[in-house]
Amino acid sequence: MRELFQQELLEVQERLVAIAELVTASMADAVESFNKSDVTLAESVIARDNQIDDAVVELDEHAITILARQSPVAKDLRLVVSALRISSSLERMGDMAEHLAQLARYRFPEKVVPKTIRPTFKEMGALDVEMSKMLVELLKTQDTAIAQKIRDEDDKVDALHLSVFETVLSDTWSQEAETTVDATLASRYLERFADHAVSIAKKMVYLSTGEWNPPTEPIRI
Amino acid sequence: MRELFQQELLEVQERLVAIAELVTASMADAVESFNKSDVTLAESVIARDNQIDDAVVELDEHAITILARQSPVAKDLRLVVSALRISSSLERMGDMAEHLAQLARYRFPEKVVPKTIRPTFKEMGALDVEMSKMLVELLKTQDTAIAQKIRDEDDKVDALHLSVFETVLSDTWSQEAETTVDATLASRYLERFADHAVSIAKKMVYLSTGEWNPPTEPIRI
Repeated sequence: MRELFQQELLEVQERLVAIAELVTASMADAVESFNKSDVTLAESVIARDNQIDDAVVELDEHAITILARQSPVAKDLRLVVSALRISSSLERMGDMAEHLAQLARYRFPEKVVPKTIRPTFKEMGALDVEMSKMLVELLKTQDTAIAQKIRDEDDKVDALHLSVFETVLSDTWSQEAETTVDATLASRYLERFADHAVSIAKKMVYLSTGEWNPPTEPIRI
Repeated sequence: MRELFQQELLEVQERLVAIAELVTASMADAVESFNKSDVTLAESVIARDNQIDDAVVELDEHAITILARQSPVAKDLRLVVSALRISSSLERMGDMAEHLAQLARYRFPEKVVPKTIRPTFKEMGALDVEMSKMLVELLKTQDTAIAQKIRDEDDKVDALHLSVFETVLSDTWSQEAETTVDATLASRYLERFADHAVSIAKKMVYLSTGEWNPPTEPIRI
């Protein structure tokens, strides 16, 4: 019985890692489709989002079954509760990747944002993918030092997000409204993806330490 | 012991209702500050968001304590798990109200969006407040018929959200980039608020029926 229980808990962790890997692959492809205006890649990202959603539902069902049958306590309980909360953030990260790919597909064969701010988006995208890889490691190892690194990377994403707004609102910006809308949304998707990574990192700290970190995030427009 | 347990479960529900009431008041004020360019009201919304965040953290701690001490099963377990998932959606709804108020404050004494699309935003805001009130009732009564009404209202919000984009991307739109950015973000905040309400409604259906509804939402840009 005890052995089965430990096996079930291990499976919770393995499922979280597997979903985080799907999300990472999805964002990597979404960023590439966005940067290179690759409509085939964009469509594959959009088509694969269901996989992430299904895996999240399965993980949730698995976690609730453990709560019902095993009545875990202490760290085991924290693992199951954290998994339930982390899974919904992972699901939203998948959605952000899909949204980005949808913009790339919609604008094809054009690129979504004009040349001048493409380097900024490229950098944001690379940071998002990097953070998502860190998240996979954090979920695998539960090494809370990685959580701090994720927060540091998020500061960089926030700075780039703000710089997009500065560019869009500057006098030199002479783009059509459609481009302004797309740049605004793309930047927000990339920033929210990073926020969710930070939110998961906080939950992993709770899992390791038992110290509950508020799920709230700094407010950004 | 059993009596204490029932009392604790009742408290979970009461806390959810109380947070939903805070969120409803916050969105009502945010919408009014946005419509009327009322900076004092906007600032009160922003100042009060901490209350919502704190109440969410307290509810989560309460729910986890119940899981640890009482090891609930069946419908009791569903209530506690649902509360943990619903609370994070309520927290995000509070954030959306705050974001809307921040736009109103930032643009004061100007209004955020130009006269031509103000009626659309007014309608979206009124629908969001209405949905939030329905949510309070749903959490109080667990009457799943209300869940369907919330979904119906969300369809209206989505249609208005699309109409904002149609306006912004039409040939007659001659606003500055700042106004385009603000209209894009405001519309997205209002639409996300409604999405979270639907997401909570689905979780309440799970609570009542035991039928797990995927936490995913239809993908919208």
